[in-house]
Amino acid sequence: MDIFEKLLQNLGPIGQHSDRAHGYFAFPKLEGEIGARMKFRGKEKIVWSLNNYLGLANHPEVRQADAAAAKQYGLATPMGARMMSGSTDLHDQLEKELSEFEKKEDTVLLNFGYQGIMSAIDALVGRHDVVVYDAECHASIIDGLRLHQGKRYVYKHNDIEDCEKQLKRAEALIAASGGGILLVTEGVFGMAGDQGKLKEIVDLKHKFNFRLLVDDAHGFGTLGKTGAGVGEEQGCQDGIDLYFSTFAKSMASIGAFISGPVGIIRYLRYNMRSQIFAKSLPMPLVLGNLKRLQLLREKRELKEKLWHNVEKLQTGLRERGFNIGHTNSPVTPIYLQGDIPEATAMCLDLRENYNIFCSIVVYPVIPKGQIIYRLIPTAAHSDEDIEQTLQAFSETKEKLDAKAYAVAEIPMV
Amino acid sequence: MDIFEKLLQNLGPIGQHSDRAHGYFAFPKLEGEIGARMKFRGKEKIVWSLNNYLGLANHPEVRQADAAAAKQYGLATPMGARMMSGSTDLHDQLEKELSEFEKKEDTVLLNFGYQGIMSAIDALVGRHDVVVYDAECHASIIDGLRLHQGKRYVYKHNDIEDCEKQLKRAEALIAASGGGILLVTEGVFGMAGDQGKLKEIVDLKHKFNFRLLVDDAHGFGTLGKTGAGVGEEQGCQDGIDLYFSTFAKSMASIGAFISGPVGIIRYLRYNMRSQIFAKSLPMPLVLGNLKRLQLLREKRELKEKLWHNVEKLQTGLRERGFNIGHTNSPVTPIYLQGDIPEATAMCLDLRENYNIFCSIVVYPVIPKGQIIYRLIPTAAHSDEDIEQTLQAFSETKEKLDAKAYAVAEIPMV
Repeated sequence: MDIFEKLLQNLGPIGQHSDRAHGYFAFPKLEGEIGARMKFRGKEKIVWSLNNYLGLANHPEVRQADAAAAKQYGLATPMGARMMSGSTDLHDQLEKELSEFEKKEDTVLLNFGYQGIMSAIDALVGRHDVVVYDAECHASIIDGLRLHQGKRYVYKHNDIEDCEKQLKRAEALIAASGGGILLVTEGVFGMAGDQGKLKEIVDLKHKFNFRLLVDDAHGFGTLGKTGAGVGEEQGCQDGIDLYFSTFAKSMASIGAFISGPVGIIRYLRYNMRSQIFAKSLPMPLVLGNLKRLQLLREKRELKEKLWHNVEKLQTGLRERGFNIGHTNSPVTPIYLQGDIPEATAMCLDLRENYNIFCSIVVYPVIPKGQIIYRLIPTAAHSDEDIEQTLQAFSETKEKLDAKAYAVAEIPMV
Repeated sequence: MDIFEKLLQNLGPIGQHSDRAHGYFAFPKLEGEIGARMKFRGKEKIVWSLNNYLGLANHPEVRQADAAAAKQYGLATPMGARMMSGSTDLHDQLEKELSEFEKKEDTVLLNFGYQGIMSAIDALVGRHDVVVYDAECHASIIDGLRLHQGKRYVYKHNDIEDCEKQLKRAEALIAASGGGILLVTEGVFGMAGDQGKLKEIVDLKHKFNFRLLVDDAHGFGTLGKTGAGVGEEQGCQDGIDLYFSTFAKSMASIGAFISGPVGIIRYLRYNMRSQIFAKSLPMPLVLGNLKRLQLLREKRELKEKLWHNVEKLQTGLRERGFNIGHTNSPVTPIYLQGDIPEATAMCLDLRENYNIFCSIVVYPVIPKGQIIYRLIPTAAHSDEDIEQTLQAFSETKEKLDAKAYAVAEIPMV
């Protein structure tokens, strides 16, 4: 069979709706500067879809640093992979500052987070090693695991009992093979907003011999006294052997890093395929991330403002009877019941008539009949933004409950 | 066993030399603006390691475009994946211009080439499909194939007879499974510089039913009358179903793209995991790439200068008795005989005493006893740069042949 024919017959779970959804629910275009209010199709909306947690994307010092760096260096330099020709003192400097901030011996920058964590997992484990991981790990971790030639044992999301069970299975297996165990989980799960139970997992080291890799994409900058993330928040940073975060969220940039023991970081530097066979992070992004890290460390008021907004939004939703699950991070899911046409009709009403722009998750990403709205409060939102949003959700939920959105099919947009 | 202990015992093929090589042969720091002459450890060197083929990295119009775009937008915007919140008219514009340039119906931008081609391969084929591929495909393609759950049949590098044999095997297999065949190869092989035999492969479509994906990282901008790449060069662009290139070489940027039929590009847009679960290409990179593409199209003299330099360098090397293999692209390998200590001693002599900075490849990347120097001529090199380099290689080769570099172990640097 022709593979193109086959692909055209099934555009995939989201692609199948693309005729109706493209440019609106999928691939929408937000206009204007990143912030709490942006334009969509010419009209101002309150935006809840961007992981600009600390509002750094348009902080004046960030904008100035980005502009100055691009003027000084252009966006081309350095060229080549870090190992071949893409290293500079400024790359080293950013690594040094991240190590100090995360209280780890050393750090390696990654040219992009998705391929970076994939290659890290690929480099860390061989065919005799076992990976034990949380069922709700991000796609990039799953893709990293798909490269792994040995066994992988998944444990039920944040279920420490099951985690222990899988560690026991892994231990039994490596007793024969001579391999080791890598446990991979997240600091904050991006969909539900609950923190990984890292303290409990670190405590399991008394019983089992494993190494712990944590993806703290949503915790970096938002959790812990200094913003160093979930390890600091839960008081178990020393037990995290390898700490990963992207720059794509609190840092409002691209690229990523892994911090850990100096020998292992050196090993990773020389063995992560996507890093030794692809281009280094461009200089203006390195300089831009140095400035963002400085602000993240020094401007504590940004994190305070973020958490003021998180609490106002989450308390407001709970008080209005919304189910927001077990989030203990800024990520704010709203769980509702309804089918896909209802969900999209409600989202349309929110966006067109209440000017609320937020992301929606439906089947097949989650079980049939469920709707999840996912709101990301940031330091850039105002009290008014939140109040207006709470009011809009109250009114649209009433309509949803009254079956006002019970349309026959997904609306055209 | 503790996985960290295991890793520390073996730092890998290149990492094992890191004590001696770090900061010199591996992870060297080039200083100054990207160009034919840069500083290394404070001293000017002629640099042959950068894929800045057309010299666009520091073209005044590129530098101006990069600076203006970063000033206008900062480096943060847009945020989120393309599908969620990261689409803009300028992303669409770059896709449109690339489609026109490559004479394809549609194009999808990729946030990074390495993970982009991995996810494309992953999305295109399922467990019943077979991938047939060239043995010397780039690491990113191999990693994409590692995600594939079905069979993959490798053919000997550029060996059309073997390619046909593997297609026959694939055909036999899918006759039962109902799957299809994807053939993956490259426009220019980055190590040896030889073009993929695309015309012959496209001709095989008369005999076999397969789709062809070509990674033209080194051909884009350097080959073909207009610089559209290897398909244009060999007159078989229509037979390339999916044309991939990175922006990291001729375009002196980051990011990448795939061009092809509109339905398949739509399918890819909605199904490439690294694209739907990771951040969109930042706006200044989109604008910077629009400017680079414009110059690549309009300033034909850059490609002419490149090829003047390619011919001067390659002819000069051949005349001096060097074996540069079968390159028919700017990539210029020099094949020599010697062990690793000799190779590094010669490279050290070239760099310190002749001020020639180039990349070297040794065992275990290639068989024991071989040394490959890989030179990348660009439009930014001068006749003098080339003459000085030819002289340096002549003199150091004499020393190599006279066993002057036969040292006991890799020199410390």
